[in-house]
Amino acid sequence: MMELNSTSVSAAVVGASGYAGGELLRLLLQHPRFELKIATSQTYAGKPVSAAWPGLAGFTKLQFTPLNEAIKGCQAVFLAQENGKAMHMAQELLEAGCKVVDLSADFRFRSAELYETWYSAHSTPSLAQSAVYGLPELFAKAIGRASLVGNPGCYPTASILALAPLLMAKAVSPENLIIDAKSGVSGAGRAKFGLDYHYPEVEGSVSAYKIAGTHRHTPEIETVLAEAADMPGLQVSFTPHLMPMTRGILATCYACLNRDYSRTELIEVYQNAYANCPFVTICTDHLPATKHTLGSNACHIGFAADSRTRRITVVSAIDNLTKGAAGQAVQNMNIMFGLPETTGLQIGGLWP
Amino acid sequence: MMELNSTSVSAAVVGASGYAGGELLRLLLQHPRFELKIATSQTYAGKPVSAAWPGLAGFTKLQFTPLNEAIKGCQAVFLAQENGKAMHMAQELLEAGCKVVDLSADFRFRSAELYETWYSAHSTPSLAQSAVYGLPELFAKAIGRASLVGNPGCYPTASILALAPLLMAKAVSPENLIIDAKSGVSGAGRAKFGLDYHYPEVEGSVSAYKIAGTHRHTPEIETVLAEAADMPGLQVSFTPHLMPMTRGILATCYACLNRDYSRTELIEVYQNAYANCPFVTICTDHLPATKHTLGSNACHIGFAADSRTRRITVVSAIDNLTKGAAGQAVQNMNIMFGLPETTGLQIGGLWP
Amino acid sequence: MMELNSTSVSAAVVGASGYAGGELLRLLLQHPRFELKIATSQTYAGKPVSAAWPGLAGFTKLQFTPLNEAIKGCQAVFLAQENGKAMHMAQELLEAGCKVVDLSADFRFRSAELYETWYSAHSTPSLAQSAVYGLPELFAKAIGRASLVGNPGCYPTASILALAPLLMAKAVSPENLIIDAKSGVSGAGRAKFGLDYHYPEVEGSVSAYKIAGTHRHTPEIETVLAEAADMPGLQVSFTPHLMPMTRGILATCYACLNRDYSRTELIEVYQNAYANCPFVTICTDHLPATKHTLGSNACHIGFAADSRTRRITVVSAIDNLTKGAAGQAVQNMNIMFGLPETTGLQIGGLWP
Amino acid sequence: MMELNSTSVSAAVVGASGYAGGELLRLLLQHPRFELKIATSQTYAGKPVSAAWPGLAGFTKLQFTPLNEAIKGCQAVFLAQENGKAMHMAQELLEAGCKVVDLSADFRFRSAELYETWYSAHSTPSLAQSAVYGLPELFAKAIGRASLVGNPGCYPTASILALAPLLMAKAVSPENLIIDAKSGVSGAGRAKFGLDYHYPEVEGSVSAYKIAGTHRHTPEIETVLAEAADMPGLQVSFTPHLMPMTRGILATCYACLNRDYSRTELIEVYQNAYANCPFVTICTDHLPATKHTLGSNACHIGFAADSRTRRITVVSAIDNLTKGAAGQAVQNMNIMFGLPETTGLQIGGLWP
Repeated sequence: MMELNSTSVSAAVVGASGYAGGELLRLLLQHPRFELKIATSQTYAGKPVSAAWPGLAGFTKLQFTPLNEAIKGCQAVFLAQENGKAMHMAQELLEAGCKVVDLSADFRFRSAELYETWYSAHSTPSLAQSAVYGLPELFAKAIGRASLVGNPGCYPTASILALAPLLMAKAVSPENLIIDAKSGVSGAGRAKFGLDYHYPEVEGSVSAYKIAGTHRHTPEIETVLAEAADMPGLQVSFTPHLMPMTRGILATCYACLNRDYSRTELIEVYQNAYANCPFVTICTDHLPATKHTLGSNACHIGFAADSRTRRITVVSAIDNLTKGAAGQAVQNMNIMFGLPETTGLQIGGLWP
Repeated sequence: MMELNSTSVSAAVVGASGYAGGELLRLLLQHPRFELKIATSQTYAGKPVSAAWPGLAGFTKLQFTPLNEAIKGCQAVFLAQENGKAMHMAQELLEAGCKVVDLSADFRFRSAELYETWYSAHSTPSLAQSAVYGLPELFAKAIGRASLVGNPGCYPTASILALAPLLMAKAVSPENLIIDAKSGVSGAGRAKFGLDYHYPEVEGSVSAYKIAGTHRHTPEIETVLAEAADMPGLQVSFTPHLMPMTRGILATCYACLNRDYSRTELIEVYQNAYANCPFVTICTDHLPATKHTLGSNACHIGFAADSRTRRITVVSAIDNLTKGAAGQAVQNMNIMFGLPETTGLQIGGLWP
Repeated sequence: MMELNSTSVSAAVVGASGYAGGELLRLLLQHPRFELKIATSQTYAGKPVSAAWPGLAGFTKLQFTPLNEAIKGCQAVFLAQENGKAMHMAQELLEAGCKVVDLSADFRFRSAELYETWYSAHSTPSLAQSAVYGLPELFAKAIGRASLVGNPGCYPTASILALAPLLMAKAVSPENLIIDAKSGVSGAGRAKFGLDYHYPEVEGSVSAYKIAGTHRHTPEIETVLAEAADMPGLQVSFTPHLMPMTRGILATCYACLNRDYSRTELIEVYQNAYANCPFVTICTDHLPATKHTLGSNACHIGFAADSRTRRITVVSAIDNLTKGAAGQAVQNMNIMFGLPETTGLQIGGLWP
Repeated sequence: MMELNSTSVSAAVVGASGYAGGELLRLLLQHPRFELKIATSQTYAGKPVSAAWPGLAGFTKLQFTPLNEAIKGCQAVFLAQENGKAMHMAQELLEAGCKVVDLSADFRFRSAELYETWYSAHSTPSLAQSAVYGLPELFAKAIGRASLVGNPGCYPTASILALAPLLMAKAVSPENLIIDAKSGVSGAGRAKFGLDYHYPEVEGSVSAYKIAGTHRHTPEIETVLAEAADMPGLQVSFTPHLMPMTRGILATCYACLNRDYSRTELIEVYQNAYANCPFVTICTDHLPATKHTLGSNACHIGFAADSRTRRITVVSAIDNLTKGAAGQAVQNMNIMFGLPETTGLQIGGLWP
């Protein structure tokens, strides 16, 4: 039973007909403190939200609007567009007094140079420099003071949460870090349909893509882990895979322990790291499965060390659209508005 | 944004490690007015709720208990056991002042005789006679006065909601009613695992089972439709199918119109029937898909008539575990406690 | 163990990069009597067959060619293009002495008028009139004499095989015939990708489409059943559904028996009808599932009658790409060349 | 078009109602040189093969028999039972003059000691010592001379084929070998059904199991790679994962290159290693997907090196029941009988 009061914060979702945008709508419509005022969509402007999201029929009478000045009247603005859009809007929103969480990659990098290497030219490098990386489990304080947060990528969320505690505790070497990540197809987005995501081609099949360091979540993972662990130049081998499922990411991470660690010690490393993190569950008697996090903002982490090879295998699971996108965005915005970070996110995972 | 106050009703779920029980936990843990006090399970007694439901890890610290007297201290009791259990418990709970919603078949039939034909001997026929069939869209008033509600079966919920408006409006003949229903595998329950529900055998396959009037949801559908439409002796041909998916029921229903009806007239029939039903969506410009209701308490209904054959095809979609079980049970209990029926059920469907 | 000899028939597949075309390649590459010489594709011309069909890598060195005169040099030509193409090519191929099986709708109707009502203008109505409908279980003799065969649609194959025996035996009324059909997504084809078949939208969902007599397989089913049973004007209510699976069709058919029939009598009706049909299995002790026919040319049929309603429910299962398209095309071509109809089709279904 | 002659080898499958056994039946029933005489099953003895394998209905009239002396009359015997059975039967079969391929783990290890560490006591260690490991791509010559072959595990097949060429060419270090493997659920077998493989629990979920060197395919992979590359003591970190799909294994393997290698050099390493291996496809312009091998005996291998980390990522895909079990068993038996290894295995992968 949730207890709530009724002072509300007006909220807008820009790019509300993509998958992350739709998940934001689902979460905000039942959020006790944010009041969804505006949902923009180029494609669906003028149509009811249920035209894009039949699952929300009956839960809202809101209509999509085109992107316009009105969003500046909202206190909380979620930007959920493709990369390269938010950088052109953020300044104006901040000046209007909005707090902004951007779900694209535009504000994930302090270094515009790095962004430009992997994405495209950045129009507001100084803004990027001042934005905060929105992973509350590591950066809650900075997020609490921020007006502009770059919401992490889905793979980085799962990967960083899995590896950061070990690196921060100096339990593992920054060498030979390997992340073998598996994602549901919704990670490809809704607009990017095509033969690669055509049901008959994906069903019953698993495949790797962008292997050997070519996926652009690589620099994001490296930068954040390097910063968190104070290990400049840290490198990872990151391999994304497409799974025959809709939602969920499982990141299987490999690292070399610096010495023999008992299981108890390793559990302590993780439990200490996430002592105040309501969405992280350390699984000590089973291993995570993506479905354990379906539709919830949870991150589940399990691990085991092999004394023979002195290598630890860490497995983390999230829902790519919730903790990996919209849920985390709401968590960030909660923190930015001084609300408990769990507000409106108290929905347990769907099972089965 | 939901507005709520905080007077709470204590609640218990008996049989909380089955799929319907798990869904009840998920819903009750975020319900603003019911406070989940007890979750019983024989198998998991003494273990945390997350042992059976990893997706609830982090959302509750509750432990399963064995079934015992304590549940009588709860104001709202949900019975989610297999058939044949609730009939032995209901009387005592009612005498203790509990309001009871039973999710098994035990209290779905006024006639214990009919129950005994299709199920087994009934220990409390008079209680069965006084119980109310918990389909709020048809019987909200009686539910509001009831202390004991028999929660409908999943197939009957989808089927009855699809056909009742036409029958009640005398728009179709009670002859030649055909219901071709498709269910996700979770309908088989969690305890009933076996080769029939072994992943490799079910995946990628659709099949019919218990065809030609042998499924015991047949008498439930017939009885309720006959009563609602005042058409004693009404018969249906009901065919259940197993789908390669986890949740959801689609009921495709066929009926013969008594005369030519315009589309507008038919839409009116449905909109009038469900004018005050927040969970029913009449789909006028697309057809329902089960995924439109994933995890929500919605029922979506669409239809079209073929002037050539004067037959109407009605398609309804629900989530078998939500509107088809736990969600509807919460909806009933809301009504029994004088709460708005949507309380705690304002969660839109998950998509994708 | 198959025994074979080695005189070969040269074969071409036109439109070999669609799903039916790909299935033809798979079957022809292991066919002991047809030698695949040409596979045409606009999209993949000049590329190896494995560029479109990675599953055939290592099994052939053939390259796709553009459509050209060379196909006229082949004895057996399979046309596997979209509707409206074959009608412009068939005459010339026949004049060159080819035997032709067309997998599109172009030659499924004797009446060009009916074709034009549901599809588009027909360029060669007289050819359509002389073509043979390629359902060997009903029309083997005519197929054996034909040079041009219109290969049936996938839904019609499953539906007609289910209902024809009952109608031909006059066991059921031509009134109130209902076909509730469920198809895997591959039925939509490979070129027709889009949001409707985007993995995240289809996965875990079942939906109906083109209900109430609007799907163009309706007239095909009606025409063939009417002819086979000599019941002019016979009508069916046909409802197609999209299933969350790749291959397979299940047709659940409902008909009203003219009198009470014992189960033994009904089994006889079916066993007599298909006594000489190696690909039809009458399931007397279980019900068909689509996966029982995965990748094979089989059609499985099961049924039961409800004495209460005197209605029979018949369930048939096929693989839409094999018996519902490419396998049946090979079966037809076998017959046209005087080979045993099972030649090259002796591959049992994949399980699991 | 296959050309064949008709001298036949009599064949038996022991344990023909498990998944590997069923796949053996499917393959042998269309094999041009092996004639399936006997299929044993405890569970289904006396019943037609189609009782266990509905997909083979219409393709054989064979009945299951109990295990008895008759199998000794067959020239080729496939043992497809659970671990610990074949060791008690092999000697007698060999003495009767049978050639034997065992699909269990019983004859995969030359060292009975190693077997006993990971499995159970071995009754015929000397026989184990003389058996040949049935991976034709590495050990074809020895297989050709063998009477008893231990058919590789599914994970080892995919893993060894991926890594052996690099190790044999001394291109990578034997340190830091990591194998992140993903398997379809059929790998768990047909008898081992339970909640872990209950459709609703597995669908839409990916999870790791037996991590950190605890899966018993670890010693098999290590032993064979160590032998093939002459690198005693070689170790791997092997992590198996359960995927929401029925068939297929993808092994993503990580190794440290000893120096910078050009892509051309790496392609040469693989093409040289598998120059005479008809079932291995080196993917140079795309990455493997498990579905590219569905139902075929193929192994697809792709790779890329990251110059930054000097690590190579190799991805291999097989069908766990075909190349990972029954197909490879047939390939081995072909070689043992002096047949072309592709005999009866010329069936391309099913797509989609």
